[in-house]
Amino acid sequence: MMPVNRRIVLAVRPEGSPGPVNFRRDDQTVPALADGQFLVRNHYLSIDPAQRGWIATGANYADPVAIGGVMRALAVGIVTASRSARYAVGEYLYGWFGWQDYCAAVEQLVISRVQPAQGPVSTGLGLFGISGVSAYLALTELGRPRAGETVLVSTAAGAVGSVVGQIARRLGCRVVGLCGSDEKVQQCVAEFGYHAALNYRAGLEHERLQALCPQGVDVFFDNTSGEIADAVWPFMNLRGRIVQCGTAAVAGWDPLPTAPRRERAVLTRRLRHEGFIIFDHLERFPAVIAQLARWHQEGALVFHEDVEQGLERAPAALAAIFRGENRGKKMIRITDGERAL
Amino acid sequence: MMPVNRRIVLAVRPEGSPGPVNFRRDDQTVPALADGQFLVRNHYLSIDPAQRGWIATGANYADPVAIGGVMRALAVGIVTASRSARYAVGEYLYGWFGWQDYCAAVEQLVISRVQPAQGPVSTGLGLFGISGVSAYLALTELGRPRAGETVLVSTAAGAVGSVVGQIARRLGCRVVGLCGSDEKVQQCVAEFGYHAALNYRAGLEHERLQALCPQGVDVFFDNTSGEIADAVWPFMNLRGRIVQCGTAAVAGWDPLPTAPRRERAVLTRRLRHEGFIIFDHLERFPAVIAQLARWHQEGALVFHEDVEQGLERAPAALAAIFRGENRGKKMIRITDGERAL
Repeated sequence: MMPVNRRIVLAVRPEGSPGPVNFRRDDQTVPALADGQFLVRNHYLSIDPAQRGWIATGANYADPVAIGGVMRALAVGIVTASRSARYAVGEYLYGWFGWQDYCAAVEQLVISRVQPAQGPVSTGLGLFGISGVSAYLALTELGRPRAGETVLVSTAAGAVGSVVGQIARRLGCRVVGLCGSDEKVQQCVAEFGYHAALNYRAGLEHERLQALCPQGVDVFFDNTSGEIADAVWPFMNLRGRIVQCGTAAVAGWDPLPTAPRRERAVLTRRLRHEGFIIFDHLERFPAVIAQLARWHQEGALVFHEDVEQGLERAPAALAAIFRGENRGKKMIRITDGERAL
Repeated sequence: MMPVNRRIVLAVRPEGSPGPVNFRRDDQTVPALADGQFLVRNHYLSIDPAQRGWIATGANYADPVAIGGVMRALAVGIVTASRSARYAVGEYLYGWFGWQDYCAAVEQLVISRVQPAQGPVSTGLGLFGISGVSAYLALTELGRPRAGETVLVSTAAGAVGSVVGQIARRLGCRVVGLCGSDEKVQQCVAEFGYHAALNYRAGLEHERLQALCPQGVDVFFDNTSGEIADAVWPFMNLRGRIVQCGTAAVAGWDPLPTAPRRERAVLTRRLRHEGFIIFDHLERFPAVIAQLARWHQEGALVFHEDVEQGLERAPAALAAIFRGENRGKKMIRITDGERAL
């Protein structure tokens, strides 16, 4: 008998933030491999804010997941069978393998090889996955921070934000953050090297932000949009850069919500507001991962993984990150027994 | 007896767009020169949309004109006396000489020398002034259009927009424009080389814009903000650039008006929205003017000057440009008799 491939598929598109009601189990047998394919046995599944956009009907940067289709997700797994010349049995890969046990993958689904020498394979999904690589590239190439400038990060303690904060500090910036709990504020300062952080749930009054960034903001690394962005924009300094890396605070974009009009600030302060999508930069992964790995091995780059066990937990974990309940990069381990490697 | 220096000073800050009620005459004698100063006898005064911002109280890129102070304005004039080693009697200069007959100027007020060999001195205020140089720099350096891309210009027939359109066409782009009358639509196509243009006063429905730019918009050269911008943003293509060069369609910014929230479009389409202020680029004027002058002498660059005679016309002329009544770059000639040079 063929082994079962447990799969979580999209049942109903969400209104607002997704949760268990939007998904269902739909197990199948493990697929046979066509020529050029290889079978990936997933070990870790990724839970990402961007998944909300991938199952919405509105305009996005990728086609939405079909109803009944396996939930699109990044994952780290090991090749257990191969009819590909490129990927061999025993290699760990990071790619678009979905919320399921097994993926009959083609080369285009792979983002990068995971090098066990660089750390536990879960790091391939976290620090060395889109979180860490996004943080590095979006900050350095769009934000272009210079020593002495103020960098403000929304979701400062998150998977991307926590890395942004540490790199900005390393570059000699004054680094301040916004996050969703007093506990995360402490974590930002104690672990991620922020000079100061603020719990936005306690209020976004002008005076509180003024105290957080008395020199204004030169780089706003925005993962949230929404009221947080509206509160930060008035603090942008001349020639400031706003890096749009996510919009986690806004649940729906159809119809478009309103916001304070930005054009006058963009003009008079010569701001640059630019969007970043990591999937434009896949060719950069190996070099950026190598840099992050050096810092990580020196102990100069802290990264938190928030790992839950069990495939069936994925939908609830996705809902939880929109409530801010994760403590670092959320991922689901779906292999039994000991932690891989 | 000292000759009279006729001056137009700010009387009352405007609510919305300015007009005659905001100014008054306040003549003085021509000032004596301190060491390092030189006396400029103005020939042409500039009327610019940006002047509204210079007399508003809200945040801007320059301190507001004081009540009772000479209205800040660019002008072209001739040096009639000099205690400066840099500027000699008989030279034509372009600079911040104000709505008045004479300015006791210092070197910092000069933007560029006007070369009579390049054209009538009025061109120093128009094609070779901030209009033409802004068009060139903002389009090429922020917009970075590539052949085959679609460039959309708001205020397409205006002093800046008409030059943007012609340069974009020269660069091999598909060039489309929005302007405020059917007459200007004709002018855009017949004189400025636009492939198509639209009268926005006849409606900004999605279908009309769709017909104007069926391939979407790669570079949006925005001089207006407001409803025009809101109608154009949904057409921005992947990696599109929005160049914010003015906000002429919005009269007041305090409190901030609202607009459709932009962050999701910026993120998912990797847009870049950037502000341009010509006064950051003063060192570029000579080289850009030389390029514009070459094209102009080849007959490949049309520029319309809308000249009125008489200092006292300046306030009404400023009001008129916000009603879209000008036919090209608005300027006031204040010397009597024949046109200078």
